[in-house]
Amino acid sequence: MFITFEGVDGSGKTTQIQLLQEALEADGYTVVRVREPGGTQLSETIRTLLLSSDVGINSVAETLLFNAARAQLITEVIKPALQEGHIVISDRFYDSTIAYQAFGRGLAESGVAEVNSFAVQNCHPDLTLFIDVPPEAARLRAEQRNQGNKDRMERNHNSFFDNVYAGFKQLAQQHPTRIHEIDGLGTKNEIHSSVLKIVKSVL
Amino acid sequence: MFITFEGVDGSGKTTQIQLLQEALEADGYTVVRVREPGGTQLSETIRTLLLSSDVGINSVAETLLFNAARAQLITEVIKPALQEGHIVISDRFYDSTIAYQAFGRGLAESGVAEVNSFAVQNCHPDLTLFIDVPPEAARLRAEQRNQGNKDRMERNHNSFFDNVYAGFKQLAQQHPTRIHEIDGLGTKNEIHSSVLKIVKSVL
Repeated sequence: MFITFEGVDGSGKTTQIQLLQEALEADGYTVVRVREPGGTQLSETIRTLLLSSDVGINSVAETLLFNAARAQLITEVIKPALQEGHIVISDRFYDSTIAYQAFGRGLAESGVAEVNSFAVQNCHPDLTLFIDVPPEAARLRAEQRNQGNKDRMERNHNSFFDNVYAGFKQLAQQHPTRIHEIDGLGTKNEIHSSVLKIVKSVL
Repeated sequence: MFITFEGVDGSGKTTQIQLLQEALEADGYTVVRVREPGGTQLSETIRTLLLSSDVGINSVAETLLFNAARAQLITEVIKPALQEGHIVISDRFYDSTIAYQAFGRGLAESGVAEVNSFAVQNCHPDLTLFIDVPPEAARLRAEQRNQGNKDRMERNHNSFFDNVYAGFKQLAQQHPTRIHEIDGLGTKNEIHSSVLKIVKSVL
């Protein structure tokens, strides 16, 4: 089973992934946890380029680089883990590329979707949990966490993140069977309960 | 005017580009010469990853990386030069990605073509010169030049380059208006005359 978490920065994805992993492991499952971009030597190199470098990267190249990192992560980590029967949880996957590069950067959604589709070569999430925290609330949380140390993606304007959020909302409407919206404004444990209920209903 | 040169390694592209550049500059044109992958800070970083590193890169990620380098080269160098009225000559462009990653690596041509199309965002060559040197002859030349120092792409098996060559031949048939086949087995000056005749007929 392949589960992905989506949401804007500061939506609490990482906390919820940690809690879900612990709950599943307590039930005896083996969980392989990854984050995008990253998880292989190539993907971590691309992560550094995308997030920490001052190299000029336009929106088209950015979309292709996120997908190159994804393609390598799938063949090196995700597919082998799924074949072993493990549960894979990914912090972000291709919905983020639609939300950030199509809705955020303004690239045509159809083109970004084609590149996503090429990159994943039929490896699709069984379940996607969109932690719904409106951008202004997420911004406050992210700023507290980052302490002014913003990476290249985080340095975008507020309007960019508003568009990214609108993208996630629209994706959730477009894929109601796969993507589950979770109210991300409750307490950590309330959100975890909602997440666990959905995951267990699919397992 | 945007001119691309294509062909397998050892087909003599670089020599012919140099001779064409000199001839065009002697006629008063300004020529901007690029090679793929490369030509911007991002694209050179990707070049190093693709050609000189030992990092694991699968065929899908490879296709996306070549295109990320291409996308950045187009916006930073090719489009601005064309807008200035210069002639741009590129050593390889998207036909190489079809030949190497679709025909060579065995990826579906339609998928590779979609990624190419996304990367170039409507920046297409006006003229493509395919220097036709059969793979066994090209191999001998490339081996003399490399002296055993093969990069990551050059380390592929002979059958890979046979498929790449077949890919170029098929592309030339598919795009007879844009792609001109040049017999690459003549002397340097014979080939240059053929190249120049075609370029001048289009200029």
